[in-house]
Order: sequence, then C-alpha cells, then structure tokens
Amino acid sequence: MVVKNQIKLIKSLHQKKYRNLHGLFFVEGIKTVRELLDSGLEVYGIYTTDNSVLDVGQDFQVLISESELKKMSSLKNPNTLLGVFYKPKTQEVDFTDWILALDHVSDPGNLGTIIRLCDWFGIRHLVCSPDTVDCYNPKVLQATMGSIARVHVVYTNLLKFLRKSKKQIFCTSMDGQSAYGTNLRESGILVMGNETHGISPEVEAVCHKKIGIPQFGNPTAESLNVATATAIFLNEIRRG
Amino acid sequence: MVVKNQIKLIKSLHQKKYRNLHGLFFVEGIKTVRELLDSGLEVYGIYTTDNSVLDVGQDFQVLISESELKKMSSLKNPNTLLGVFYKPKTQEVDFTDWILALDHVSDPGNLGTIIRLCDWFGIRHLVCSPDTVDCYNPKVLQATMGSIARVHVVYTNLLKFLRKSKKQIFCTSMDGQSAYGTNLRESGILVMGNETHGISPEVEAVCHKKIGIPQFGNPTAESLNVATATAIFLNEIRRG
Repeated sequence: MVVKNQIKLIKSLHQKKYRNLHGLFFVEGIKTVRELLDSGLEVYGIYTTDNSVLDVGQDFQVLISESELKKMSSLKNPNTLLGVFYKPKTQEVDFTDWILALDHVSDPGNLGTIIRLCDWFGIRHLVCSPDTVDCYNPKVLQATMGSIARVHVVYTNLLKFLRKSKKQIFCTSMDGQSAYGTNLRESGILVMGNETHGISPEVEAVCHKKIGIPQFGNPTAESLNVATATAIFLNEIRRG
Repeated sequence: MVVKNQIKLIKSLHQKKYRNLHGLFFVEGIKTVRELLDSGLEVYGIYTTDNSVLDVGQDFQVLISESELKKMSSLKNPNTLLGVFYKPKTQEVDFTDWILALDHVSDPGNLGTIIRLCDWFGIRHLVCSPDTVDCYNPKVLQATMGSIARVHVVYTNLLKFLRKSKKQIFCTSMDGQSAYGTNLRESGILVMGNETHGISPEVEAVCHKKIGIPQFGNPTAESLNVATATAIFLNEIRRG
C-alpha cells in the first residue's frame, strides 16, 4: 500500500511550484514511462496497478490500487501506471547547431508538439523564456511523449541569452521576409513567439532577420498556429 | 424568449446524425460567426445574450438568456453568441490545382488544423473518406475558425474518387521517398492517413508515389503528428 504521503507528493507535482521544489515530475502510460527509463533519466518511483507490465525492481516499483492511481493521475482515465522521475540537470547550450528559442509560448499542447518536432528534426536545445509554459506540465508531457528525454529544454532570460550569443538570430513573423529565399545554411537561433502577441518588442529588437511563411490562400486566412509554423520553419532549416 | 424546440434543435446539432438530417451546423463566438456571415453562407439564426455585438435583423437574431446559451453551447464557458448556418452545397471538385485527401483522419483538432492549413496555402478542395471526422463537428470548427467558409470539404468514397481522377496521387508515409527530392511542380493529389494506422492498404495501392519527410533527429523520435506533417507537405508543394 502506498503511504498517503506519496500520493500527496505526486498530487503536488501537478503544480509547477512543487515540481521545482522537489526537482521531480511525472509521466503516464507504459510507452512514455519505458522511453524515459531507457533514456537514462533517474527514476524516483513507478506506481502501477499491474506489476506484470514493467519490472524495475522492488526498490522503485510500487503496486497500487485503481483508486490510488486515480488520485495521483492528471488523466480522466488513468492508464495502468505512472512514473515519477528526477528533472534532468540543465546542460550547457551547444552552439554548433541550430537552436530553437520560444518567447512566451503558453499553450501546453503547442509546447508538447514543438518538443516532438525538435526531436524529429534533431534540434537538441530548446531555449524558453521564463513565461513559456513549463515543459514538465502534465499536458505538455502528454503531447511530447518520450521526446522530453531527448530534447534539452532550458528556461532562461531570453533577452540576455540572445544578446550573449554570437549567432544569427531569426525572428519569425507572418509579415517577415519569405523563408524560401532566406539563406538558412549557416546555423543560427530561430525565435518563435506567443500565440496571440507574437514575439515581444524587446526580443524582436535583438533579432537580425525577420522571416515568414508566404501565404497562398485567401488574405483573410487565419494565421498559422505556432506549432504548425514551427514545423514548417524547422523543415526549411533542415531541407537546406 | 427562445421556444424550447429551438434549444432542442440546436442541442441535436451536437451530433453528426442531426446535422446531416437538418442540413445545419453551428459555430460559436463573434469572430467566427462574423466570418461565416461575411463569407455568404446562408444563416439560419443567431442566438445571442447581447444584441449589441451584432445586428443581422430581427428575422434572424434572437436574444436569449445566459442559461439558454449554456444549454445550446458545446463550450464550458459559452461566449455571447452562437450562429446556426445551413451546410453549404457540395461543389464539383476542380482538378486544376493540388487537392488534399484525408483517409480516416479521426481527431477533430487535427482536421480543424488541416482545414486552416488549406486556407493558408490556398488549397480549395479537401476530399475526405466517409470515416474522417465530420468537419461540422463543434471541436473541428473551434480549431478551424472561419476557414471552414473558404475551404470546400467533401466526403466521398476516397478509393473511387482517386481511381477516377487523372492526377498523380502522392501517398504520405514516414518511410516514403524524401519530399525534398520529389518533383511537386505539377499539381496532384496529396493523401494523408489516419493518426495511428496511416493510409489504408487499398488507398495506398492506387497511389503513384510514396513521399515522406526525412528525419534528422534520434531514430526513436515519435513520428510527426498528421497536422504538422500536412503543414510541411503543403509547404513543400507551394514553395516550388
């Protein structure tokens, strides 16, 4: 039986404040838990209603009841197991390749999709402004799946980070110069902005180029969502 | 006061069966309602808690209470007004430009994003298999916004449609030939598949080419979501 304190701890990890305090986060579902275990992330505990789906040893694996899982879970219909992991340590950002930077991206689903895109396109460092949604938010992790283990996400003062970097900085904006005609061969930093307000004026001021995706349809078309726009920009960077 | 029958009718439009039966659908929020009105779609009725936000004349506009709006709405927090429109008539598919075809795309958010992408990239015809989620589903419309008025969505037997067409048919798949090296200058039909199972074998059998987006990251990376993959393929088609 899980002691009440453990349920209390895991429930607290639904909130960013306590994830930061304890240096822990949780993911749900066998596929993601396995991927995080395989990635070498340090495990705190695995809580499961069915010991046959996984075996990480009795020091880490705890058999729980359906109702205990329900108490811990962020899902309406929790699925067999939940894994608690230590947040990985922040690494040095390696400037040899392209870096993606996010200025106040606030939707968890968008950040989750963006992390998955970084994984696909081999972008290892994702640099986020402190007001970007927390990458260990359960909703982000649901959209990210195992990619969180392979993409290094760092939260920092974006303006300072950009100012210190010696890379070309590309701001993205619907009215920027066409990405098709822009030379993206040399690596740089690509900055994506907030869902409603775009990139903040201070961040835009330190950018070297403003690039966009040409629109081919009706001029009244809705602007592209930040996650689909990121997909297109990363593709433009990698296609060469 | 709205008669009970009207609330009942609108509540029934939450279900595809009744949308088809009545030839009606509804959207919520001032921005989308305005866009659909401007697009020339035939309006059935506008139901609002505040007559000052819009004026379409007393034949069409009905003042309702918050609790009546709540009963009609598909949202947790309904927002001032709801518009009921006649479903537009199916048009002939025009084969002079690229056509996007969906084989059993089932997530409403994905279809909504894809319709919005068609609008951005000027794809006028979206041909869907009958088991693709209904484009008049409230969750699709929430993700689509006004784009539903500018993109012609048709549900039909996809296999028959593809067989009859005289265009080049491109199946998309993670293991297809790189889209970067594929000649996409001449217009064709681009087929996207189901979120879990991809394109069905029967549909794949009538395709002429199988194209994909090269992966640059870790080989264990999650495959791209169908909406983000569509964004990249449509960009590849349009960038030339």
